[in-house]
Amino acid sequence: MLKIAIIMGSKSDFEVVKPALKVLKSFEIETDVHIISAHRTPDIAHEFALNAIKNNYGVIIAAAGKSAHLAGVLAASTIIPVIGLPIQTSFMGGLDSLLSIVQMPSGIPVATVGVNAAENAGILAAQILALTSGELAKKIKDFKKQMAEKIANDDKTLQSEINL
Amino acid sequence: MLKIAIIMGSKSDFEVVKPALKVLKSFEIETDVHIISAHRTPDIAHEFALNAIKNNYGVIIAAAGKSAHLAGVLAASTIIPVIGLPIQTSFMGGLDSLLSIVQMPSGIPVATVGVNAAENAGILAAQILALTSGELAKKIKDFKKQMAEKIANDDKTLQSEINL
Amino acid sequence: MLKIAIIMGSKSDFEVVKPALKVLKSFEIETDVHIISAHRTPDIAHEFALNAIKNNYGVIIAAAGKSAHLAGVLAASTIIPVIGLPIQTSFMGGLDSLLSIVQMPSGIPVATVGVNAAENAGILAAQILALTSGELAKKIKDFKKQMAEKIANDDKTLQSEINL
Amino acid sequence: MLKIAIIMGSKSDFEVVKPALKVLKSFEIETDVHIISAHRTPDIAHEFALNAIKNNYGVIIAAAGKSAHLAGVLAASTIIPVIGLPIQTSFMGGLDSLLSIVQMPSGIPVATVGVNAAENAGILAAQILALTSGELAKKIKDFKKQMAEKIANDDKTLQSEINL
Amino acid sequence: MLKIAIIMGSKSDFEVVKPALKVLKSFEIETDVHIISAHRTPDIAHEFALNAIKNNYGVIIAAAGKSAHLAGVLAASTIIPVIGLPIQTSFMGGLDSLLSIVQMPSGIPVATVGVNAAENAGILAAQILALTSGELAKKIKDFKKQMAEKIANDDKTLQSEINL
Amino acid sequence: MLKIAIIMGSKSDFEVVKPALKVLKSFEIETDVHIISAHRTPDIAHEFALNAIKNNYGVIIAAAGKSAHLAGVLAASTIIPVIGLPIQTSFMGGLDSLLSIVQMPSGIPVATVGVNAAENAGILAAQILALTSGELAKKIKDFKKQMAEKIANDDKTLQSEINL
Amino acid sequence: MLKIAIIMGSKSDFEVVKPALKVLKSFEIETDVHIISAHRTPDIAHEFALNAIKNNYGVIIAAAGKSAHLAGVLAASTIIPVIGLPIQTSFMGGLDSLLSIVQMPSGIPVATVGVNAAENAGILAAQILALTSGELAKKIKDFKKQMAEKIANDDKTLQSEINL
Amino acid sequence: MLKIAIIMGSKSDFEVVKPALKVLKSFEIETDVHIISAHRTPDIAHEFALNAIKNNYGVIIAAAGKSAHLAGVLAASTIIPVIGLPIQTSFMGGLDSLLSIVQMPSGIPVATVGVNAAENAGILAAQILALTSGELAKKIKDFKKQMAEKIANDDKTLQSEINL
Repeated sequence: MLKIAIIMGSKSDFEVVKPALKVLKSFEIETDVHIISAHRTPDIAHEFALNAIKNNYGVIIAAAGKSAHLAGVLAASTIIPVIGLPIQTSFMGGLDSLLSIVQMPSGIPVATVGVNAAENAGILAAQILALTSGELAKKIKDFKKQMAEKIANDDKTLQSEINL
Repeated sequence: MLKIAIIMGSKSDFEVVKPALKVLKSFEIETDVHIISAHRTPDIAHEFALNAIKNNYGVIIAAAGKSAHLAGVLAASTIIPVIGLPIQTSFMGGLDSLLSIVQMPSGIPVATVGVNAAENAGILAAQILALTSGELAKKIKDFKKQMAEKIANDDKTLQSEINL
Repeated sequence: MLKIAIIMGSKSDFEVVKPALKVLKSFEIETDVHIISAHRTPDIAHEFALNAIKNNYGVIIAAAGKSAHLAGVLAASTIIPVIGLPIQTSFMGGLDSLLSIVQMPSGIPVATVGVNAAENAGILAAQILALTSGELAKKIKDFKKQMAEKIANDDKTLQSEINL
Repeated sequence: MLKIAIIMGSKSDFEVVKPALKVLKSFEIETDVHIISAHRTPDIAHEFALNAIKNNYGVIIAAAGKSAHLAGVLAASTIIPVIGLPIQTSFMGGLDSLLSIVQMPSGIPVATVGVNAAENAGILAAQILALTSGELAKKIKDFKKQMAEKIANDDKTLQSEINL
Repeated sequence: MLKIAIIMGSKSDFEVVKPALKVLKSFEIETDVHIISAHRTPDIAHEFALNAIKNNYGVIIAAAGKSAHLAGVLAASTIIPVIGLPIQTSFMGGLDSLLSIVQMPSGIPVATVGVNAAENAGILAAQILALTSGELAKKIKDFKKQMAEKIANDDKTLQSEINL
Repeated sequence: MLKIAIIMGSKSDFEVVKPALKVLKSFEIETDVHIISAHRTPDIAHEFALNAIKNNYGVIIAAAGKSAHLAGVLAASTIIPVIGLPIQTSFMGGLDSLLSIVQMPSGIPVATVGVNAAENAGILAAQILALTSGELAKKIKDFKKQMAEKIANDDKTLQSEINL
Repeated sequence: MLKIAIIMGSKSDFEVVKPALKVLKSFEIETDVHIISAHRTPDIAHEFALNAIKNNYGVIIAAAGKSAHLAGVLAASTIIPVIGLPIQTSFMGGLDSLLSIVQMPSGIPVATVGVNAAENAGILAAQILALTSGELAKKIKDFKKQMAEKIANDDKTLQSEINL
Repeated sequence: MLKIAIIMGSKSDFEVVKPALKVLKSFEIETDVHIISAHRTPDIAHEFALNAIKNNYGVIIAAAGKSAHLAGVLAASTIIPVIGLPIQTSFMGGLDSLLSIVQMPSGIPVATVGVNAAENAGILAAQILALTSGELAKKIKDFKKQMAEKIANDDKTLQSEINL
């Protein structure tokens, strides 16, 4: 089965990125995590993308903030799907990160998720891999069912709390 | 091989959506196109998503503008990847469409591309399917090579034009 | 007399939503509160809207944040007025929630109030119901009179404080 | 049966406002249209709101652009629901109008619809009045059914067009 | 000599407004401060503006947040200059307040200062009154000179701090 | 009587600025118009402000777009009120011009009007001068009365047009 | 003397970029112009930056729109100054381009000019080279003097036009 | 060798500005720091710019917030490159500062770096001076190499942390 790579531009992004790793582990998907900067280590970024298929990656999650070029730089040098995860900044809540990632020029798409939405980045990566694995598809369906049940339970709890 | 579905919220979106269809056809991927509104035909939207896997779809592209709920509504009822394509509006250039699509709550990701970036939506869908088809992967690599050559040619042409 | 339903997308929204409940109780309007997610429990949302009239609701208040589809999803399946209450987020102060709720496509309006303006959502719901109840109308008039008196009293207090 | 009032701040807004009038006429709801400016004719605005109930209005639709105070000024002096219709401007697509209308202080809500969403303002007004009239409720349900059918027909037409 | 009125929409604005009062007192300009809400006490606001000239006011400073109509409502009913002071909100840093105040329709200007810029509102009011008083003009000139000297002193202090 | 100066940063701004000149002429206020750039002719700008009082100006209107420093630069070197008129740009409808003018640091206020609101700049200048002239005050009152009458007439015309 | 390179991401940017070329030619600075895409021809971009010093470039001007990574990608692989020129888009007037270029992470600055401000990009490049050439410095001083004279002439012309 | 000047509009900006000073010292570039306000001490600002070349400065870094005119005012009166450093504000994260600095009119460029990006301002200044000094160029190359090594080390550390 294909692996997932989570790349972040700076060590400080790791706290935000963790839920992606956690949800992928819960789906038992092999996941590597690396710190690679599009601007400070451009050669390593370039190499990583060029070798991604050979290294058995199916999806890359790229997390970066501000002028967030990491996802685009990786997408430029591979054809496996790259998921862009914009990191929140103090500037308009991360609008800089979001626009830098999502507004890619024609030809090089990045699959962008919400600002700081690391769990969603992980789930999306899993959904993509699930096209190649019925077993994984089943796990994701179960995950969705549990989310629905949690909401229903929250609603039940709320009813008793309000009536108190 | 899995099919792709392109869903748009209104007939008027078709002109914007066309490049997605065109690029998918160039990759010889079977693609269906439908007009389904999350708000005006919610039952049909719900049904479409619930049956997407059974109907052999691998990816759904959902195009909508303003309070663009279509992608989210479809993603709520399927586990295949949903690509959100925000349609440009007169309001801040489509910021309403973009935020309505990309800022999904935890648990239900939408793979968002840029505003009016229909070609990118198509390419991303193809990249996802290519995980299951080496032949398709080769076509996408060729497509990227041609893009690079076009840029190189544009540069050559520019040199002669400037020197005139 | 018709009831009001307050629906929120997540348990964490309850603190923001409470002033709506409080003001409706002060008007002695029967009000139910539920956690229903447009994305995680789409079937329950759909059912709730379809049965809203039968269940004697006159107005639905729908509170949600980020890609806030809840109000639109409910409005799609009922003809009773749906009030959208955008929850503040870290992204541009809740612009994502606001635009996702207010910019509805033609045909399916959502009566949107300000970001985190739960009390206003409650008052607006009461104003709508008051079209069917002279008694309720009187209570709202009294409420407005008290607001005016409070401002006048605040002004008086300020005068003495400044002169000290 | 209660009437609806459509108030606009300037004659130039009439073209944008017309779809509200049209949809209300299609529902056979008696509707008055007036030009009243919150800033240029504040007394008339004040009088209009104070007498709205006496004059048998059930809902007021207030359309204005830029620093759009009209809806708030009317809402300040009546307890019938006021629907705010933000007019598009050249400034960020009407963000000025939208925020001036929707971000009302606690106590005086305005039911805001999307920028230039006059038809939605009309439908919302009708939905509110429909709480007092089963006949009107039926008309709105039919209207929604026709919208759904139009989408379904658009989809059918699209299929044949694509296959040509 | 003419007086200045500082009007704020809510008691909670007083902390922000205080620097306006302080600077006006430092210029020995008689200043009244009132809490009057455009939406909760519209009659009082209207009356205040209508009587402003008779009551010997030369300038009104109006401070309000969110859908900040106070300055516009006052300006609608007087011809003395009204200075609008937008109060910071959690929504895009007060963009709602700023646009609600500054984007007035043609015919009814509001002299707008920056978000939370209460001191500037006070200085501007003084500058306007200074057209009628050479003595006041001299005080403002001195104030500016002191500001310049403070900057120069700050620079001197900085030099010694850096060299340590 | 004091004069008004209208300064614009570039000849291309004159079309936008004209309504200010026109309304001031209608009030029979002596008005000078100049092209002075804060960036290209900083010395002239500086001189103009330093000599404004000596040259009998009571108010300066400064129109500029983009990084619009003209109003602030003039305000830095005079104590007569400076009205800032932000010129619309292609960037977010002139948000750059507006923020560059209105967000002045403490100590140096600029009385900002709306984007392209030249007529309002002129009226505000007249309102300020009217503190020194009862005759001018009367003209402004008449102007406001005429505006109100125009709105009332527009409303009457609308009624007959609708009933046709 | 060092040369300047103008790089643009797409042939369609050339019309916007031309004023940079024109002003650099007027200063008689040798300038090369190339189309190189950060995303479609990443290797060429990388190579260009790595060889920039060897090829005798002193400054690179990089023009790009939307998720505009070109300037950042070049800056990552050279230490000569890179000037970023954001191209206007339909999205909020080019806010996407601007933020993608200016908000660079610590360590890799890009000297950003205004949206579509190609002439300024050229002048800035010349100002930087002028640190190494007194002759060029003199040309830039003359250029500034001519700008100032043009403004003064525009003002004179305006005076005669107004007095007609 | 040429010196660098760091100018800030207010003493309170010093904490933000410090990393520029620090990085320039690490490159052993002589750097002066001054507090000069474009609005409160316009004459000093003007003088500083006029004498910058004579005083042996090669680059000026100008830091300011809100209506940040300092960089533009300095650039108006010198031809050495001026780097604009926008200070973060509570208004949309510093969008006011950024636009006031970057959107300069044609003819007077300011080399703008990101909001609060003081280190980048310092590095950019060094990169510009490095055109005149091979020794400095070498130091900047080493600095970049160290940044790359730090990222690589962070990645190594992360691998061991994750595997624990």
